[in-house]
Amino acid sequence: MPTSKTLSELADHVGGRVIGDGSIVIHKVAPIDEANTGEITFLSHPRYQRFLPHCRASAVIVAPGMIASQENRPAINFLESSDPYIAFAKILQLFCPAAKFSRAVSQSAHVESSANLGEGVTIFPNAFIGPNARVGEGTVIFPGVFVGEEVQIGADCVLHPNVVVRERCRLGDRVTLHAGVVIGSDGFGYAGTGEQRIKIPQAGIVVIEEDVEIGANTTVDRATLGKTVIARGVKIDNLVQIAHNVVVGEHSVIAAQAGIAGSSRLGKNVTLAGQVGVVNHIKIGDGATIGPQSGIPQSVPAGAVLSGGIAAAPHHEWLKVMALLPQLPKLWNAVRSLEKRVADILK
Amino acid sequence: MPTSKTLSELADHVGGRVIGDGSIVIHKVAPIDEANTGEITFLSHPRYQRFLPHCRASAVIVAPGMIASQENRPAINFLESSDPYIAFAKILQLFCPAAKFSRAVSQSAHVESSANLGEGVTIFPNAFIGPNARVGEGTVIFPGVFVGEEVQIGADCVLHPNVVVRERCRLGDRVTLHAGVVIGSDGFGYAGTGEQRIKIPQAGIVVIEEDVEIGANTTVDRATLGKTVIARGVKIDNLVQIAHNVVVGEHSVIAAQAGIAGSSRLGKNVTLAGQVGVVNHIKIGDGATIGPQSGIPQSVPAGAVLSGGIAAAPHHEWLKVMALLPQLPKLWNAVRSLEKRVADILK
Amino acid sequence: MPTSKTLSELADHVGGRVIGDGSIVIHKVAPIDEANTGEITFLSHPRYQRFLPHCRASAVIVAPGMIASQENRPAINFLESSDPYIAFAKILQLFCPAAKFSRAVSQSAHVESSANLGEGVTIFPNAFIGPNARVGEGTVIFPGVFVGEEVQIGADCVLHPNVVVRERCRLGDRVTLHAGVVIGSDGFGYAGTGEQRIKIPQAGIVVIEEDVEIGANTTVDRATLGKTVIARGVKIDNLVQIAHNVVVGEHSVIAAQAGIAGSSRLGKNVTLAGQVGVVNHIKIGDGATIGPQSGIPQSVPAGAVLSGGIAAAPHHEWLKVMALLPQLPKLWNAVRSLEKRVADILK
Repeated sequence: MPTSKTLSELADHVGGRVIGDGSIVIHKVAPIDEANTGEITFLSHPRYQRFLPHCRASAVIVAPGMIASQENRPAINFLESSDPYIAFAKILQLFCPAAKFSRAVSQSAHVESSANLGEGVTIFPNAFIGPNARVGEGTVIFPGVFVGEEVQIGADCVLHPNVVVRERCRLGDRVTLHAGVVIGSDGFGYAGTGEQRIKIPQAGIVVIEEDVEIGANTTVDRATLGKTVIARGVKIDNLVQIAHNVVVGEHSVIAAQAGIAGSSRLGKNVTLAGQVGVVNHIKIGDGATIGPQSGIPQSVPAGAVLSGGIAAAPHHEWLKVMALLPQLPKLWNAVRSLEKRVADILK
Repeated sequence: MPTSKTLSELADHVGGRVIGDGSIVIHKVAPIDEANTGEITFLSHPRYQRFLPHCRASAVIVAPGMIASQENRPAINFLESSDPYIAFAKILQLFCPAAKFSRAVSQSAHVESSANLGEGVTIFPNAFIGPNARVGEGTVIFPGVFVGEEVQIGADCVLHPNVVVRERCRLGDRVTLHAGVVIGSDGFGYAGTGEQRIKIPQAGIVVIEEDVEIGANTTVDRATLGKTVIARGVKIDNLVQIAHNVVVGEHSVIAAQAGIAGSSRLGKNVTLAGQVGVVNHIKIGDGATIGPQSGIPQSVPAGAVLSGGIAAAPHHEWLKVMALLPQLPKLWNAVRSLEKRVADILK
Repeated sequence: MPTSKTLSELADHVGGRVIGDGSIVIHKVAPIDEANTGEITFLSHPRYQRFLPHCRASAVIVAPGMIASQENRPAINFLESSDPYIAFAKILQLFCPAAKFSRAVSQSAHVESSANLGEGVTIFPNAFIGPNARVGEGTVIFPGVFVGEEVQIGADCVLHPNVVVRERCRLGDRVTLHAGVVIGSDGFGYAGTGEQRIKIPQAGIVVIEEDVEIGANTTVDRATLGKTVIARGVKIDNLVQIAHNVVVGEHSVIAAQAGIAGSSRLGKNVTLAGQVGVVNHIKIGDGATIGPQSGIPQSVPAGAVLSGGIAAAPHHEWLKVMALLPQLPKLWNAVRSLEKRVADILK
């Protein structure tokens, strides 16, 4: 049965206030350009304000001051919140109750007899649970998931289809791994060169603490020795590469296609934007923010806000810029030389 | 039985003309440096012209004017076409008939009883078809594929091994998803920061229209609300990231490892080269072309041709350039100051 | 039973020498900040030297000259090696014996009757071995692996969970494919534009020679015609894209998230750092080294050492640099013009 709430109830739930009619009943959240009667929507970006005049939603979540009064807007009501984005998230959570699972182990799954499954675990067909693995209560294992030998998984985790967690890795409670994530693949380590190159065994593990969410097809390599750590509350997007022995500090956020090379350490609350590259053996301080496509070749102090991405320009103009860029040192010298000659003239 | 055609038949098939002997029989397409008697080849790139003198193929597909006559080339024949690349593709299609499948549902697949399978569907072992899913006629589902609850898949699609299509997403007819593709994973959305960060449920879906092809291990996230759209005829390469609520317009082409952040919209016939990054909430106009590794931080008009990639330079010279680059504003000021001083001298 | 060796035995094994007590017994390798009595560790990076005073390991592997004598370090012993990294790798291999497998074919695997399995092959549950595939002796096939029709796999390979090897591709001996790797997906090839765009069938294969290791979720596309080649001894990291008809020469090393476009050829012992992008139809000479995030738009001579990555800078300063970068040609002209005017003054 779908959820229904009055606008006042929603305002109470998120600690906001109603501008308009608090008694109207809301049963759904919808995008601003699709919302209809009985639905609440959200101004997620200022540029969507243009949709407001034509909006047929019964209510809109807004920031304080955005709407002075409801005059001339008889058909629409507002839920004003000091943090409208959080209000939106909480209301959407209300209308999207958690999926229901069978809390049963499929006969078509392969579960080793030495594995230890908690209460209310759901194991879908074609999943594989290895010897001595432990799966905490309420955890959901989708089809095609591989849980290796002696892996430990906490309670209330969700491993989406075709996730791989290799031997001995450990996941805390409430960890979500999206489809195709690989945890505990070998770190990329070799000694020597050419014919003589030999593999450095990757004998460590990956530890993922509680409340971590990792996006589709992201890879997290096991440590050479010791552990690769994804600390509590970290959120990682799709197609990210986390190399061996990396530590990602609590509540850090890493956007899609970023990569962190071996043994680098991110502090707490670090933000890496999309396609960022971090070299090996460096530290990024607490709260640092790195812009899209940036390269990070050395350690970064706490709180730094860095960028390195280049905005694309018209191709023909860019060709000229690119031809001149390598000659920047020559240009520099020309300017220094000019400065001397002009100083000589003025002497 | 392998296909055999005379060179004249091939020329008719692609609307080209024969220079040489149209009666020779062709039974295969081969690369220019490997082709032999009975085989046709193709000058795919001008730099391969050097292979022509030693080429043992019976025929070569060429552009008009490339070969004036067959004089002095008695052993080789030409198929001249106004679009030799399309002629090559059509001839190769002729010699590569579509793979044959069992049109049967494997006993080792898991198909929920409420799922609806069309005529002639092939379901390989270890595939999973969820409740109320619909699979259109002639579609092929390889091993390890996950089709979630209420997913709708059109006719004549191919889902290669270990593809994941999550709940409620929709695929049109003739969609090909290569191995490891993930459709409908959660978009990367959170509100708040640190300990207070909460997940924004990703309640929308992904809609993939007809004739789309998506490369291996690419990820397409479901919308927060509404839908992420891959419009008809779009071709996406491997390891691409498409974030929540993105719209990719008809017939656009996206090369490997490119990424598009949330809610951005590509028009029709847009081309993104490899490793391009597009920020969130922008528009790329119809027919725009973006060069490799470019960053796109703002909207792009229709038809624009942009680049932002930097050609690698010798490491030691590049270090000098990189040291000077952040000082570009200082250099600029030095030049402006010099201009004033020189103007003063000349006054 | 775990391995135990005296320090002298370890020194003999790697051709190093003992500084201290060669009779002590070592049973494990551990990270320098975690190692304890009975364990050997390794100074993997000079910056970890600070851990040495507090190190409780029984022995440390070091480079020559790093430790002059054992004076004042009574509790710790050293294994000095001319190549300490190789010594570390060999000792770690000694303490990490190869995993043991069942050498049996699971009843829950799907193996076509026409497939040919060598002696001592291990096939885990839910693997799929297609018609006429050949799997060499001692090879291990994990759950969820797909081996397509007529695929040939050599001896002593390991295909980790959910690897996909499509039809007719060939792997040599001792190839390791990490979880989620896709071998032989279609190359990204189309002819024509818009509505008229047609697919170029990808009729070739992928050939992977012996002693290759490929990282998690990496993709290697099959050739249009002929073959994509990964030559012997090549090591590829996670999330790398290798396009159709690429050739990667012997013993080359490719770091995470790099991409190589169609038909490009890498020589022997080439090194690509992380997130490098290589355009199509070029050659990279033997022994060339390309730095992180570099773009390679044209062929590179043997032995070249190139870089193109940009170090991130403070965001506000970077904005100014980025605003000026497109005006580099104008700056150049201003300097040239100044030079002329100053020369005129001095005439």
